[in-house]
Amino acid sequence: MTDLVTVGEATLRFSPQRGDRIETAGEFAAHVGGPESNVAAAAATLGLDAVWLSKLPETALGRRIVGDLRRHGVRTGVVWTDDGRASTAFVERGGTAGATTVADRDGAAVETMTEDDVPLGVVRDADTLFVSGATPARSETLLETTEWLLKAAGEAGTTRAFDTRFVKTGLDPDTARELYDRLLDDVEVLIVDEADADAVYGLDGDVVPTGHSLRTRYDCGTVVVTRADSSHAVVGLAGESIYEVPPFEAETRDPAGVHDAFVGGFLAGCHRGRDMRDALYDGAATAALKRTLVGDAVVGSRRDVEAIREREK
Amino acid sequence: MTDLVTVGEATLRFSPQRGDRIETAGEFAAHVGGPESNVAAAAATLGLDAVWLSKLPETALGRRIVGDLRRHGVRTGVVWTDDGRASTAFVERGGTAGATTVADRDGAAVETMTEDDVPLGVVRDADTLFVSGATPARSETLLETTEWLLKAAGEAGTTRAFDTRFVKTGLDPDTARELYDRLLDDVEVLIVDEADADAVYGLDGDVVPTGHSLRTRYDCGTVVVTRADSSHAVVGLAGESIYEVPPFEAETRDPAGVHDAFVGGFLAGCHRGRDMRDALYDGAATAALKRTLVGDAVVGSRRDVEAIREREK
Amino acid sequence: MTDLVTVGEATLRFSPQRGDRIETAGEFAAHVGGPESNVAAAAATLGLDAVWLSKLPETALGRRIVGDLRRHGVRTGVVWTDDGRASTAFVERGGTAGATTVADRDGAAVETMTEDDVPLGVVRDADTLFVSGATPARSETLLETTEWLLKAAGEAGTTRAFDTRFVKTGLDPDTARELYDRLLDDVEVLIVDEADADAVYGLDGDVVPTGHSLRTRYDCGTVVVTRADSSHAVVGLAGESIYEVPPFEAETRDPAGVHDAFVGGFLAGCHRGRDMRDALYDGAATAALKRTLVGDAVVGSRRDVEAIREREK
Amino acid sequence: MTDLVTVGEATLRFSPQRGDRIETAGEFAAHVGGPESNVAAAAATLGLDAVWLSKLPETALGRRIVGDLRRHGVRTGVVWTDDGRASTAFVERGGTAGATTVADRDGAAVETMTEDDVPLGVVRDADTLFVSGATPARSETLLETTEWLLKAAGEAGTTRAFDTRFVKTGLDPDTARELYDRLLDDVEVLIVDEADADAVYGLDGDVVPTGHSLRTRYDCGTVVVTRADSSHAVVGLAGESIYEVPPFEAETRDPAGVHDAFVGGFLAGCHRGRDMRDALYDGAATAALKRTLVGDAVVGSRRDVEAIREREK
Amino acid sequence: MTDLVTVGEATLRFSPQRGDRIETAGEFAAHVGGPESNVAAAAATLGLDAVWLSKLPETALGRRIVGDLRRHGVRTGVVWTDDGRASTAFVERGGTAGATTVADRDGAAVETMTEDDVPLGVVRDADTLFVSGATPARSETLLETTEWLLKAAGEAGTTRAFDTRFVKTGLDPDTARELYDRLLDDVEVLIVDEADADAVYGLDGDVVPTGHSLRTRYDCGTVVVTRADSSHAVVGLAGESIYEVPPFEAETRDPAGVHDAFVGGFLAGCHRGRDMRDALYDGAATAALKRTLVGDAVVGSRRDVEAIREREK
Amino acid sequence: MTDLVTVGEATLRFSPQRGDRIETAGEFAAHVGGPESNVAAAAATLGLDAVWLSKLPETALGRRIVGDLRRHGVRTGVVWTDDGRASTAFVERGGTAGATTVADRDGAAVETMTEDDVPLGVVRDADTLFVSGATPARSETLLETTEWLLKAAGEAGTTRAFDTRFVKTGLDPDTARELYDRLLDDVEVLIVDEADADAVYGLDGDVVPTGHSLRTRYDCGTVVVTRADSSHAVVGLAGESIYEVPPFEAETRDPAGVHDAFVGGFLAGCHRGRDMRDALYDGAATAALKRTLVGDAVVGSRRDVEAIREREK
Repeated sequence: MTDLVTVGEATLRFSPQRGDRIETAGEFAAHVGGPESNVAAAAATLGLDAVWLSKLPETALGRRIVGDLRRHGVRTGVVWTDDGRASTAFVERGGTAGATTVADRDGAAVETMTEDDVPLGVVRDADTLFVSGATPARSETLLETTEWLLKAAGEAGTTRAFDTRFVKTGLDPDTARELYDRLLDDVEVLIVDEADADAVYGLDGDVVPTGHSLRTRYDCGTVVVTRADSSHAVVGLAGESIYEVPPFEAETRDPAGVHDAFVGGFLAGCHRGRDMRDALYDGAATAALKRTLVGDAVVGSRRDVEAIREREK
Repeated sequence: MTDLVTVGEATLRFSPQRGDRIETAGEFAAHVGGPESNVAAAAATLGLDAVWLSKLPETALGRRIVGDLRRHGVRTGVVWTDDGRASTAFVERGGTAGATTVADRDGAAVETMTEDDVPLGVVRDADTLFVSGATPARSETLLETTEWLLKAAGEAGTTRAFDTRFVKTGLDPDTARELYDRLLDDVEVLIVDEADADAVYGLDGDVVPTGHSLRTRYDCGTVVVTRADSSHAVVGLAGESIYEVPPFEAETRDPAGVHDAFVGGFLAGCHRGRDMRDALYDGAATAALKRTLVGDAVVGSRRDVEAIREREK
Repeated sequence: MTDLVTVGEATLRFSPQRGDRIETAGEFAAHVGGPESNVAAAAATLGLDAVWLSKLPETALGRRIVGDLRRHGVRTGVVWTDDGRASTAFVERGGTAGATTVADRDGAAVETMTEDDVPLGVVRDADTLFVSGATPARSETLLETTEWLLKAAGEAGTTRAFDTRFVKTGLDPDTARELYDRLLDDVEVLIVDEADADAVYGLDGDVVPTGHSLRTRYDCGTVVVTRADSSHAVVGLAGESIYEVPPFEAETRDPAGVHDAFVGGFLAGCHRGRDMRDALYDGAATAALKRTLVGDAVVGSRRDVEAIREREK
Repeated sequence: MTDLVTVGEATLRFSPQRGDRIETAGEFAAHVGGPESNVAAAAATLGLDAVWLSKLPETALGRRIVGDLRRHGVRTGVVWTDDGRASTAFVERGGTAGATTVADRDGAAVETMTEDDVPLGVVRDADTLFVSGATPARSETLLETTEWLLKAAGEAGTTRAFDTRFVKTGLDPDTARELYDRLLDDVEVLIVDEADADAVYGLDGDVVPTGHSLRTRYDCGTVVVTRADSSHAVVGLAGESIYEVPPFEAETRDPAGVHDAFVGGFLAGCHRGRDMRDALYDGAATAALKRTLVGDAVVGSRRDVEAIREREK
Repeated sequence: MTDLVTVGEATLRFSPQRGDRIETAGEFAAHVGGPESNVAAAAATLGLDAVWLSKLPETALGRRIVGDLRRHGVRTGVVWTDDGRASTAFVERGGTAGATTVADRDGAAVETMTEDDVPLGVVRDADTLFVSGATPARSETLLETTEWLLKAAGEAGTTRAFDTRFVKTGLDPDTARELYDRLLDDVEVLIVDEADADAVYGLDGDVVPTGHSLRTRYDCGTVVVTRADSSHAVVGLAGESIYEVPPFEAETRDPAGVHDAFVGGFLAGCHRGRDMRDALYDGAATAALKRTLVGDAVVGSRRDVEAIREREK
Repeated sequence: MTDLVTVGEATLRFSPQRGDRIETAGEFAAHVGGPESNVAAAAATLGLDAVWLSKLPETALGRRIVGDLRRHGVRTGVVWTDDGRASTAFVERGGTAGATTVADRDGAAVETMTEDDVPLGVVRDADTLFVSGATPARSETLLETTEWLLKAAGEAGTTRAFDTRFVKTGLDPDTARELYDRLLDDVEVLIVDEADADAVYGLDGDVVPTGHSLRTRYDCGTVVVTRADSSHAVVGLAGESIYEVPPFEAETRDPAGVHDAFVGGFLAGCHRGRDMRDALYDGAATAALKRTLVGDAVVGSRRDVEAIREREK
């Protein structure tokens, strides 16, 4: 039985060294990133059996994406196609005044991923399914696939976790809210960034009432509100309890994927049966580890994450 | 007055080091290439005032393309747009058994370049106009633009040079022949690779009759037949004369752009008023220099090219 | 059901760029290599479900080895331990006059791998088991484990393939012959390099009688004799048939793992039900691909291997 | 008509990676820098048609300098010579305790640049001429050329801008003051660092009276006083108005060229007809962008600079 | 006559770039480090004639270690052997949350270094002998060799300096205390980190009484207590005097070897006849220089160290 | 007693990667080269105690040169000065059609090296003194110093070896001949390249009579004539004997310093008391090793050289 199954898009990102620009850099380093693949990588780092499902062109770029995720310990279930591109992006990572990302994702193979491209058995047998809001926002087809997926998981008793990730979808707030309303009924775990809650639902007050409001709206057992601002603290609500967990201190070498590392660490903690507070700490420590690493996905082992938890306590 | 004006697409190419593959390489070097930009760079290296005209997205990738060409000494006349992509490609350069190129050019901004995007004055004032067959093969719009361009150049007395470059267009031979028939009437200088002549016109005999046949077909003063096979010899026909020029010896570090370097060197020689034979030697020496360099465009100076001609004579 | 299971040691190899020496190089590239892991990687490249079983220290070096093999598409079954080292080597790859390898493998965790460290079910369920002579030569424990492994595979009906690889074992010929005699009874597929056959069995004549002699000695259905000299041709004997297959031409960028790529490609061909001759060609094409790549394991896809076969036929 | 013409020396700088020293570094990155070329690059980044005039040896080093500046969007007008060197420097960029620069500029070709080497038409047709104090301090010939240049520009109605840049000239304060007194009569725009004002004119009080004092001394319409200390604030005086503009926050990856980026951004703002305050902000935002980039010249676009202005307001 | 002789182990360390991990890094930089070799390098940087004595395998790794130390200006006296390994380590340098070092030193050739492997004349003729606690903790043989060495140096009138460096030895406190008690009688200069004093001797109060206590225990003229915490201040006791010297400010790019750079700079200051306070400042400035450099040993010159002292005074 | 002392200039060379040009390369690797330092490095590699004497500026560049030579095992005796530059060169190493070297050596500190800058004792105590023709050709001062040096060595009984190296001196043949006539009286070992013998002395026949002619002219016991053409064979004449030694086969990765490696290996062989033929083979094997390495000086050990001799015999 799989611990965690995720479904979504992964992008091959090319980045110059810090201090160089896309316009003049001699060399570009390649990393693979995407909300669902990053979450799977973080969970695998913490020892979970994690699977990422997607659709890719059968090219060297497609194989690169799969190979890199496998190296992160993620199992991959990919439908190979001769139609559609691999998503690419050219990214100046953190810290340049006016840092630039040129995303180049139109026409990606994943846009046409239907329910026929999903191995249903893997989803049914999984403990938890994770999808982010970036996936249904990519195409009408993916929206339908996501809807079907959440329904199928629910029927099989697979826990459903969803992260809104509104900001990078390019959707307008009204469209996003409709999309979430369509998908999120009965989701068990909802992760929302404070800024998303403000933009999409007009919830601009304190994070605790924000969490309560969303829990009520979607009737989900667990809501986590993250703060993308410099504090990076998170607040979790489950049952009657509310926990606020501050970030662990760590130099930020590359902000890419830090939020996803939190999500993956948190889901891994939940899967291990840790209580909410402990799972949030697992997430925060995984995020701290990621923050010091260049690339979108966290690299290391459960021991690294536990060492961070020890150090900071 | 501009010496040479070229119009076409340039692609940002990312290549791993020799011996690495796209699947696993840590670093990718970036180079800009395209038939027309390579030809302009070669001509500029030989001292010509060369201009490249195109259409690009106003992104860091678009600026990268322009900056690299400027560094090669090419002046650029670019229409900046917010629609369309920059063409990219991921290229394992020469020598890997089963070497791979993943071209990623669909939806490039240049596909929508119309005559309104061409600064007509620059074309009228130029000594020579160069376009390759890759440009009209890219889109119906570019085919129309190319047709208009050749006509406008002809009216202005600008010498028109055309290189078929059939192989990489992806066209079928019949379509290609129709396309060439539509464009090549009254072109003054025609460059055709032996393999193209075979595939498109069924001219599979000796290169001299091939050249004569094409000269007759399109009524052009000068025809150059190149050989992409290992000999890389070229044959030029002009007036009554026929010249065969062997390649200069040089290690092949990167085959990309070698043919274009020949064309640029040859056109530069013609422009300088050298006789056909001398111009072919200029082309061959420029190609030899390119062959030893990594990247699509030749780098150096007229002195380098002349040193090669000296050394080998 | 697994297609191919391999058991052995993998070494983390650090290599300076070509032209640099260990004494002065600024940077070292890391690659993972080992006969069994290289064979598994080659088979996975050709589409087999291949597993590598071993024992590693639970350190970043151990995880590096596993991650790199996963990236090659190999599934890994590793016993993690806190005792013993990860094998390392410092290798000047090909072409330096007096090129040096400093192997540093004493005390490796794998030396203590017993039958209790082998997941017997994986071996039983596999189509083919592959081990090289390097494994039993590493320690008395590994010799016993190998013996048990071949016996268990035989009982389960798993095809057993063995590659002598005498030269790098450091054994003297008599000890090696005794070791092989102890292990090879009833092995179905035996791969022997011509030089090994000479050194260990005194078979220094033509490769065909050498093959026959070994087939008789060990009563195995298939024998392949390879030639490590510049010809790299291979001869296969199966049933009444004898096939000689020449190498495909390819530049040698890194000789490491070329032999193993042949073995992996050959075993993949056999697994697919190709006839002997075709399987040998698969091996030879895989070896040609490897030869052009830096690193111990082949990278690419079945399409690459087939493109080489097409090109050269 | 050219927007900005600059005249001076550019140096090819070789720098080890941060944390490496010249004594032991394996690799050196090359960048081109010089006050006038940096100012031209910054102005070109902001969309001006900027020209740099100089004298260089006709070597690969000379061509490197020109190619790099062209890539920054600068047009170049260079007198090529076979006498004299290209200036080089070996620079440990920022942050090493005891960081070292080995300048190697004696005998540079530019030292012999006379008025005959200046294309007078370009200067006459330009909107603004910029020279720094580094140029006349390099040689007696360059002092005479600078004097002639400022006079010629004045006669043509070209606005003259001058940046003292005393500290790196190696002049003693008295010589510098005489040099400035000889050159600066009737300059329209004067940029002085606070530390220069102190060292050369004994103006060690507040920057506003310093600015007034210099404005009176040289009867120039606009004076900008910069602060090289950590505040990097600037004060501009024009007509009756005084503006103080604080720096935009940005990590300092490489301090080289930050002052010049300010000057180029400021002159671009002035050229666009922005008021003094706005032009100072343009300068400050351009400096902030440069600060985050490795290399002497700013890279990017007007959009980057405007994004910084937006972000910080 | 040699100024400083040191005896101990040096390790070849392989490190990924900051932000990369051992698990995934493409390239590893190599540096040589060890307490005694680092101290010798620091002293040589400050102009002393410093010698490092050790035992190494006659391999490329052994020669690498010697070559790198020679480049640092250290003379080397090495017994070459065919038995035993070169020590290696794989080090993620500073700043990664959960940064990892995989030390791989068992079976190093130096473990078997006896008094017969020490050129006694070099020790007798030296002004000062330095050994750290890491050396006698490596093996019983090295403990005996160290004991003999200190005795021999004492008989020859060579000043003996010892740095406890308990933390990385892996010893338990009781064993360490016994070891120090056995070795340190009559040592003239003792360097102890505050944390060592606490762990080994239970001296957890203020550093001054800690210093006095150790001075009394071992009857040594000079005791320096260092603080490995962020303050990095040092306190020196000699005769009746007590000096506290704060660290010089400098960015920490790589913490490796900073303590050793202090010791080398301090011993160089003592050797030059500087008073205690001045020698401590030399040590602190050398440590500040090291802190900004990647690698274990300081690189530069006496001028660099003096520039730091000037700047900060 | 020193085995070999050499006196001359060393240059810090910056080279782009193969396939890159000085005009566009992102990174430059640094190596130290010079005829005398290369010869010393080769001799040290073969186990000799070799010293290089020179004069350098006390800058990071000067220290770099010394550090690199020490790493090669060469002892250095350098007069440090604040006047004069370090020699630099920018070199495209081998294989580029029209490869370029921009030498930048005017005003080097070594040009002013007088006999007062030479530690006479070191020369007197040496077994052999080596100088190349490049040294006296650099300046009138160095010519006088060389003359004095050869005389002093002769008086002390130190064997004098001289390599003409005419081609790169830039001298005209007549001046060179006068210079050699002034210096070479009584030199014991003379090395001359065939091309030099032709250009300077008009000896364009077979190498054996060329060798005899020069032996007679300068009355020297040993003459070695090398062939810089592709054969790289050498002919040695000593007493009545004549030996011709072919080159060992090896890929040429970098031709720089191959001749010097031969000279160093040959002198090392002579020093060890090998007969002429054996010493020539030592030289040829050392040259073969160098040929495969990037950089000016050979790296490795006597074992490497002996392995090459074994392999090829």
